[in-house]
Amino acid sequence: MPAQIPHLAVTLGDPGGIGPEVIVKALSVPGIAQQARFSIIGLADPLSAAAAQAGVRPIWSTDPGAPVRLIEPCPPVTPIHETSASGGEVSFQFCLEAIRRAKLDRAHPDFVHGTITAPISKEAWHLAGHKYPGHTELFAEQFHTADFGMFFYSPKLKVILATTHIPLCDVTRTLSTAGILRTIACRDLGIAAPRIAVCGVNPHAGESGLLGQEDDAIIKPAILAAQHEHLDVKGPFPGDTIFIAALAGHFDLVVAMYHDQGLIPVKLLARDTAVNVTVGLPTVRTSPDHGTAFDIAGQNRADPGSMLAAIELAITMASSRGT
Amino acid sequence: MPAQIPHLAVTLGDPGGIGPEVIVKALSVPGIAQQARFSIIGLADPLSAAAAQAGVRPIWSTDPGAPVRLIEPCPPVTPIHETSASGGEVSFQFCLEAIRRAKLDRAHPDFVHGTITAPISKEAWHLAGHKYPGHTELFAEQFHTADFGMFFYSPKLKVILATTHIPLCDVTRTLSTAGILRTIACRDLGIAAPRIAVCGVNPHAGESGLLGQEDDAIIKPAILAAQHEHLDVKGPFPGDTIFIAALAGHFDLVVAMYHDQGLIPVKLLARDTAVNVTVGLPTVRTSPDHGTAFDIAGQNRADPGSMLAAIELAITMASSRGT
Repeated sequence: MPAQIPHLAVTLGDPGGIGPEVIVKALSVPGIAQQARFSIIGLADPLSAAAAQAGVRPIWSTDPGAPVRLIEPCPPVTPIHETSASGGEVSFQFCLEAIRRAKLDRAHPDFVHGTITAPISKEAWHLAGHKYPGHTELFAEQFHTADFGMFFYSPKLKVILATTHIPLCDVTRTLSTAGILRTIACRDLGIAAPRIAVCGVNPHAGESGLLGQEDDAIIKPAILAAQHEHLDVKGPFPGDTIFIAALAGHFDLVVAMYHDQGLIPVKLLARDTAVNVTVGLPTVRTSPDHGTAFDIAGQNRADPGSMLAAIELAITMASSRGT
Repeated sequence: MPAQIPHLAVTLGDPGGIGPEVIVKALSVPGIAQQARFSIIGLADPLSAAAAQAGVRPIWSTDPGAPVRLIEPCPPVTPIHETSASGGEVSFQFCLEAIRRAKLDRAHPDFVHGTITAPISKEAWHLAGHKYPGHTELFAEQFHTADFGMFFYSPKLKVILATTHIPLCDVTRTLSTAGILRTIACRDLGIAAPRIAVCGVNPHAGESGLLGQEDDAIIKPAILAAQHEHLDVKGPFPGDTIFIAALAGHFDLVVAMYHDQGLIPVKLLARDTAVNVTVGLPTVRTSPDHGTAFDIAGQNRADPGSMLAAIELAITMASSRGT
C-alpha cells in the first residue's frame, strides 16, 4: 500500500437505480475501503436502505474525517425505480459536485484524484433538462477536453474507442491520423507495454482500397507513427476477426474505430464485468459497465462485481498517477 | 427423404486451400451423400490426395450417372498452399461452371438446385484478374440480382445483413426502408415464423435522434411495415446489446445494418461453425464461414464441420424450394 492513499469520489447515480446497492456492497468487500479515502456523493436514505437489505454495516459518515465520508450536495428525493426528472436532476448534481472536487487545488482537503460513477439514466438526465449522451461527455466538457476517449477494461478484453457517441455517418469524417495516434498512444490505461491491435473501419479493413480508402489513408499512417514511437502496434485488422485474436491472448488492447465495433465484443464477452474508463481527462473516471437496472432496483439482487472492478481500477490508476 | 432429391454443385475452392479436404471429409459422413445428388466442380488430384490422407474411400466418379459426380471444367493445376494466380483462375472457373449449371432449364440433367462453395482466396482471384469481393457478389452479378443479401446461419445465432461489402461511409446512404423491409421479410432462410430483432445503425439505436436520424427515419418505418405484414419483428435495438438478447433465446434472427455489426458477433460466437448463405438468388448458395487456411492445407488437420453444415443447409433449402 502506498504511503499516501488516493482520495476518490463515488457518485450515487440515479437514486432509484441499483447504484446505492452496488456501492454499499462493493465498499463492504474486505480490504477495499482501506485502499483509498472515499467520498460518496449522494443521499443517505437509499444507501441506508440498501445496506439494511444487504445486511451490511453502514461504513460511511458525514464526519469530515471519516475514511468513507458521505457528501449530500442536494436535498433528498424519494427514489423512484423508473425514469424520473427528480432522479435525473440529483444524479446530475452528484456528478457536478464530484467534478468540482476533482478540479480543486491538490492541497485542498476535499480534492479527489478520481471519481467512480454509479449508473445514471440518460433519459432521466434529459427529462431534467441535461442533454448529454452520458457521463463521458459531461466530464469531457467540464474539463474542457476535446481529446477524450472511452476505454473498456475487463480481464478478457480491453478496448479503446477512436470515436465515441457520434452518428455512424460521421465516423469516417471524424477519424483523423492524429486522433487515432493519440488513442493508440494513450499512456493512461494501467497496462505496461501493451501489445496493441488496431481495427480497420471498413469491412475486411478496406481490402486494399476495394471497400474504402480510410484504412490505408488515415489508420495505417497512425499505426506507422506509433511504431516509430516504439509502440507495439499492428493493423489495421478486419474488425470481424481481430477480437478473436485478442481473446486468444495475441493482443492486450484493441483500438476500435467506432462505438458498436468496440462495444459489441465488449458486451458479448465481458458483460457486467467490464469497467468503462474516460481517458484524456486530468482526473480519473471509471464506472461499471451496466445501467440503472430499475427493474431489479431495491430488491437486493444486484451484482456489485462491475462496481468493485471500477473502484479497484480507479485506485490503481490514481495511485499510478501519484497521490 | 423426399421422392426427388435435390442436385447440388460443390465447388472445390482454391485447390491449394482446405476445400478439397473438407469436401472429401464432409461427403464421407454417413448418410449425407444419400440426401442429394452431388456434382463436385473441381480437380481430381487434390480430392484424391485429401481422401488418401484422410483415409476415406473416394466416392466420386466422372461417370455421368454417379451419385457423386466429378466435373473438371479446366485443365489441372498443381495446388500451391498460398495465394496464386493459378489457384485464383481455376477456383473462379469452378464457380462459373456451377452458375452455368444453376441457370440451365430445370429439366436439363445437369441442372443444379444450388451450390455449396468451398473457400476461395480473394487475393488469388484478384491476381487472376477477377475483381470481386467474394462469391456473394459474383453470384449476384451472374444472376443479375441487385437485391441480394448475406445471411449467417449457426445453431447459436442467425444474422442477416441489410448491406454487404461496402465502405462504412456508404452505409447510411445505402440503407433504405424498402431494402430493410426486403431483408426483414426474406422468406428464404429455412426458419418458420422467426422472431426477428432489427439493429439500429447508430450508437444506442440513435438515442431518439440525439446520435443520428436514420434509426427513426429509415429503420423504424421498415419495422412498422413488416409488422403490418404480420411478421414478428421488433426494434431498432442498440447493436451492442441485441446480440446478447438473441443469444439468450429471445429472438431467432437478427437483422444487422452493416458488415462488422453482424459479423463481429457471428465470428465471436459461431466461429468456424456458421454457414454463409446468399439470399435473393433464384438458386441456393451456401458456404462454410472459414477461409482457405493455406497454413494448414494439405495436412489433414481441417475440421469439416462448417462444410458439413453448409451442405446440410443447402439440402434443406433446396428441398423446401421444391425439386
